[in-house]
Amino acid sequence: MKGNEAIGEAAIRAGCKNYFAYPITPQSEVAEYLSKRMPEAGGVFLQGESEVAVGYMIFGAAAAGERVMTTSSSPGISLMSEAISYIAAAQCPAVFVNIMRGGPGLGGILPSQGDYFQATKGGGHGDYRLLVMAPDGVQEAVEMTMKAFALAEKYRAPVMVMGDGLIGQMMEPVEFPDDLKVAPSNKDDWATNGMDTRKSNKKNIVKSLFLDPKELNDNNLALKAKYDQMKEQEVMYEEYNTDTDYKVLITSYGTMSRVCKTSIDMLKKEGIEVALLRPKTLFPFPEQEIFKAATKQSCKSVISIEMSMGQMVEDVERCVKGQRKVDFYGECGGDIPSPEKICDIIKGLL
Amino acid sequence: MKGNEAIGEAAIRAGCKNYFAYPITPQSEVAEYLSKRMPEAGGVFLQGESEVAVGYMIFGAAAAGERVMTTSSSPGISLMSEAISYIAAAQCPAVFVNIMRGGPGLGGILPSQGDYFQATKGGGHGDYRLLVMAPDGVQEAVEMTMKAFALAEKYRAPVMVMGDGLIGQMMEPVEFPDDLKVAPSNKDDWATNGMDTRKSNKKNIVKSLFLDPKELNDNNLALKAKYDQMKEQEVMYEEYNTDTDYKVLITSYGTMSRVCKTSIDMLKKEGIEVALLRPKTLFPFPEQEIFKAATKQSCKSVISIEMSMGQMVEDVERCVKGQRKVDFYGECGGDIPSPEKICDIIKGLL
Amino acid sequence: MKGNEAIGEAAIRAGCKNYFAYPITPQSEVAEYLSKRMPEAGGVFLQGESEVAVGYMIFGAAAAGERVMTTSSSPGISLMSEAISYIAAAQCPAVFVNIMRGGPGLGGILPSQGDYFQATKGGGHGDYRLLVMAPDGVQEAVEMTMKAFALAEKYRAPVMVMGDGLIGQMMEPVEFPDDLKVAPSNKDDWATNGMDTRKSNKKNIVKSLFLDPKELNDNNLALKAKYDQMKEQEVMYEEYNTDTDYKVLITSYGTMSRVCKTSIDMLKKEGIEVALLRPKTLFPFPEQEIFKAATKQSCKSVISIEMSMGQMVEDVERCVKGQRKVDFYGECGGDIPSPEKICDIIKGLL
Amino acid sequence: MKGNEAIGEAAIRAGCKNYFAYPITPQSEVAEYLSKRMPEAGGVFLQGESEVAVGYMIFGAAAAGERVMTTSSSPGISLMSEAISYIAAAQCPAVFVNIMRGGPGLGGILPSQGDYFQATKGGGHGDYRLLVMAPDGVQEAVEMTMKAFALAEKYRAPVMVMGDGLIGQMMEPVEFPDDLKVAPSNKDDWATNGMDTRKSNKKNIVKSLFLDPKELNDNNLALKAKYDQMKEQEVMYEEYNTDTDYKVLITSYGTMSRVCKTSIDMLKKEGIEVALLRPKTLFPFPEQEIFKAATKQSCKSVISIEMSMGQMVEDVERCVKGQRKVDFYGECGGDIPSPEKICDIIKGLL
Repeated sequence: MKGNEAIGEAAIRAGCKNYFAYPITPQSEVAEYLSKRMPEAGGVFLQGESEVAVGYMIFGAAAAGERVMTTSSSPGISLMSEAISYIAAAQCPAVFVNIMRGGPGLGGILPSQGDYFQATKGGGHGDYRLLVMAPDGVQEAVEMTMKAFALAEKYRAPVMVMGDGLIGQMMEPVEFPDDLKVAPSNKDDWATNGMDTRKSNKKNIVKSLFLDPKELNDNNLALKAKYDQMKEQEVMYEEYNTDTDYKVLITSYGTMSRVCKTSIDMLKKEGIEVALLRPKTLFPFPEQEIFKAATKQSCKSVISIEMSMGQMVEDVERCVKGQRKVDFYGECGGDIPSPEKICDIIKGLL
Repeated sequence: MKGNEAIGEAAIRAGCKNYFAYPITPQSEVAEYLSKRMPEAGGVFLQGESEVAVGYMIFGAAAAGERVMTTSSSPGISLMSEAISYIAAAQCPAVFVNIMRGGPGLGGILPSQGDYFQATKGGGHGDYRLLVMAPDGVQEAVEMTMKAFALAEKYRAPVMVMGDGLIGQMMEPVEFPDDLKVAPSNKDDWATNGMDTRKSNKKNIVKSLFLDPKELNDNNLALKAKYDQMKEQEVMYEEYNTDTDYKVLITSYGTMSRVCKTSIDMLKKEGIEVALLRPKTLFPFPEQEIFKAATKQSCKSVISIEMSMGQMVEDVERCVKGQRKVDFYGECGGDIPSPEKICDIIKGLL
Repeated sequence: MKGNEAIGEAAIRAGCKNYFAYPITPQSEVAEYLSKRMPEAGGVFLQGESEVAVGYMIFGAAAAGERVMTTSSSPGISLMSEAISYIAAAQCPAVFVNIMRGGPGLGGILPSQGDYFQATKGGGHGDYRLLVMAPDGVQEAVEMTMKAFALAEKYRAPVMVMGDGLIGQMMEPVEFPDDLKVAPSNKDDWATNGMDTRKSNKKNIVKSLFLDPKELNDNNLALKAKYDQMKEQEVMYEEYNTDTDYKVLITSYGTMSRVCKTSIDMLKKEGIEVALLRPKTLFPFPEQEIFKAATKQSCKSVISIEMSMGQMVEDVERCVKGQRKVDFYGECGGDIPSPEKICDIIKGLL
Repeated sequence: MKGNEAIGEAAIRAGCKNYFAYPITPQSEVAEYLSKRMPEAGGVFLQGESEVAVGYMIFGAAAAGERVMTTSSSPGISLMSEAISYIAAAQCPAVFVNIMRGGPGLGGILPSQGDYFQATKGGGHGDYRLLVMAPDGVQEAVEMTMKAFALAEKYRAPVMVMGDGLIGQMMEPVEFPDDLKVAPSNKDDWATNGMDTRKSNKKNIVKSLFLDPKELNDNNLALKAKYDQMKEQEVMYEEYNTDTDYKVLITSYGTMSRVCKTSIDMLKKEGIEVALLRPKTLFPFPEQEIFKAATKQSCKSVISIEMSMGQMVEDVERCVKGQRKVDFYGECGGDIPSPEKICDIIKGLL
């Protein structure tokens, strides 16, 4: 299946009944696919008037206790950033998929990873975080999309799956794991129930406005407690070739990491051991795992390789705590750096 | 003068002829002030239909070579984040002032510093940066606003001044330094000139769409070169009590740093030396200065004190490179932590 | 049943599967009712972002061959007037219900008939007409709403049912006649079928843009032919007390006509014979019927009684062709003129 | 000067200081012209986000006592119709120019007169009227535009100048009569003055919401009184060849009437006398003048010739009161009927 279609199907399998979106390349196939598939599955497909509108449609559905998703691409996510901040503040579950474009502005539609900061540090205003997962292929896109619904409901928080145009467009065989189906969850305690107080005795109110300083501080502390819990329980990462006496540790995520693995295999044949630590969750970030992998005795230096001008590298630097030199290599026009190029750069470091 | 009004007047003095905004507490006085003052000064005051509209009005005016500013508050900045990314990509000068609200969502209107991430890591999508200045009072708000226009034009980039409701509302005596007046700059080389090719022989085009990977990469590299230059030339910070054998280094910015200074004075009387390093630019960040101040021999630990749940602390951690423990204290409901509270926290560290 | 709810139920019974609207007093109960009822009936209820949006949602659904309705009130209909003109030009069937407010502008919510001109002469631009029906009570509102779908599809044209707040709010017993259920109609010849050419061999295109003068003239002639056919086949009216030697003929429609009937009964007891001709279709207008009733030998004069400042009276004048004096009486603040008041006015004429 | 530009200049000469618009063919040159000219004249040119926005920008400026104009074309006027109704209800002066497109929907851009009904019977909802002037060439377009401002202020009401694409595009020599310059008018009695009560002791409020039936009725009566006064004082028309014993009376307006004059001249050479009565104001309509001209003894029949499918003809029929047969001829694809064609039709009548 094509990545974009697989993401759509994964939402259906996860029990998502509401999909609202506004078309933007390179993710429009998700909308196309779900425009047909969602009604078949008894759900609602709706194209909003704009991404701003979609953001608030997501908020509305989520506040009403519906399982809901949107997909968009970089500028579209920017337009939703106010709504995302509101959804986080109001503690509602919702799934956002960002199939990134390249560059700020309109940029280009080829693969890129320029939205790391926006996703992990919060495009919107105020103290909130998105739980962000970054798949490296179609199968993982499926699994992370399905898992996103469970995590969103576990934390009553917006969750993002962030891929690039390559994941969206490439075809790979996929399975939809039964154990990632998401069971109905009890939302009677918090979701709006309109005039209907049968479900719960009180009328639930969902809001993000807290004019009383004490109340606002409490809400921010409640959010922080969730993010701390995420840091403890939800960190996901992959190690590659870390059981060797590697000299260099690469940090890379998403499709870029697949190229890095090829480079590592190529270098191994030349007798050069290099390892990869790939964050699968960008927030929470595998802080301790990166520190540990970077400070292995054999390891001389760390390099963050991204399809950007240098974003995740700031988090890597923070985690490495000055124990090793942290380099960076990135391109961000849409041409994915080749394995040979990566090999050259690694050799250059040595 | 009241901070919000002083910011408005500073824009006038700096030669700003275009102010577009949408009202939002706690910054609406800027708009009120400029609705009267801008026409007197021969400029244009315009309230847009929404913050999304304002963002693109700013882009349009900036692309046409006009000196232009908007002011807003947290959710409004989120709504402008797509436009900010476009303006950065298209390399246009523009000044954004964010008088922050507290919390994600609607939150509250009392002083807060919850938008550090949004401002410094990019609310919008893609590889871009805002040059961000954070005043600690009305006089500095004036100076930074005036300077923002010069910096915006120097770099042909969006520049942000980020304050909080306290700065917006408090009254302090102000001077408008003559040497911060901004001379007319020659925009004929790049600004759109419509049908008028008298100014330059060619028709200038301002755009952010680069479908060719090479062209997009080049534009991203050009942006990166600017941000690197900013890091070299524009870092601003203030040191307080750093000429002592301080045991603790506080990092804090904006109005919060003024409370920290009071605490430092109070602790000094008790014989406890504590220093402050206050970033005046949040991007570029005083990375080396913080490292140096943190690693002074007498200094045992660092604490970042913010009116947030912990944002700038991540940059401080990154700069300290594991050489000292980095603690954090923050409140973010709108009640500013008292000097006594800060003293207690510092003593707790010791 | 309350009138507004009965209108909603009538749409369901007529096979309407799509209802899009934006709330506005005094018709919001239609939306409330259908928000629950439409999903039960396997249809779609959708609140648009604005009346402008709703107008184009109606157009889209109608162009796709869906049976679709909206309800609104005066200002909302104005906002839809561009879309109504497009729907007429593009020859798509759709049902609009206008439960009128009083006055231009925001006016008031009490019963009024101020939108006669807008409905019958075309609020939108260009040469088009709406087929307009005006019920005098809840039962007729039901029947006309059901019939509206059949007429819309017969003519592939927008059809309007126009009532007032009294009809919307009052409760009367209602029946939903089985013979007004609308059979599925074959839309394969003209409705958009997207990529699906199974239904018809060619891809249908629905449009209102005709840049070629010949093509535009042809489309306008095709529209005119429909309106001429309506004039021949769809005129509906009611006569009351016309089998007497009445001295005065009242023309009146909607709820206003019910008051006139009471006045006629009261006057009969005093020995004064007065007749009523009530247009049930406002377009096509019962032109010949009014001429005939006005020129009956016993009849000395005609008076148009409306809850407006004088709108239908222009059409009455046109039809009477100067053969009788045509007077007017109207009020338009929301207080319905009383039967006694009408009696006095009639006596004044005599 | 080109008609569209002349209309723009006429507004300037009449003292208009505010022009808000949204581009639409065939009137975009007015906006182009005023985008340069308005700032030169110390006024404000502003392109709105949409015609809906422009309508309310007009309302806002008018309510604040500013002299204000917009220009648009058919669909744009439809989008403004809600605002026009509000402006009428709130009794504010404003000038609307409609350079008509052909057909309902998007139609075409060639000359047409399809918006007669919309202009004269009220596109918007509720009991209101526009004073509508229809120029037959560039000079008259200039004079009517200038006069429109005086009339708008005299009546505190929206006034429309309605032309077609031919008037907008054709070039003719023009003069801007000094006596049509509009003196400043005292608006202190009614216009909003914000916080400023120096101008008048009370704070003026401009509104269109009247929830009290009595108050609403009074406002509607006040409006009606204005329209009655217009009918007495503002009727404008032109007679052509009416001093002969004409057998046929043509009614026609705008550019169409110029073709009719040519036909009349051609027929005169053949010994056939035909007259023209051209309404220059479409509302108020020259009711008595048409009746009088139609019932001249020599006159056997009346024909309304329009670039529409038959709109003004309804008013002509009403005025002729059945005393003569009223025929109609119209084309509405954008090709203006030729003088020869008109001659043939007239001969057919005889």
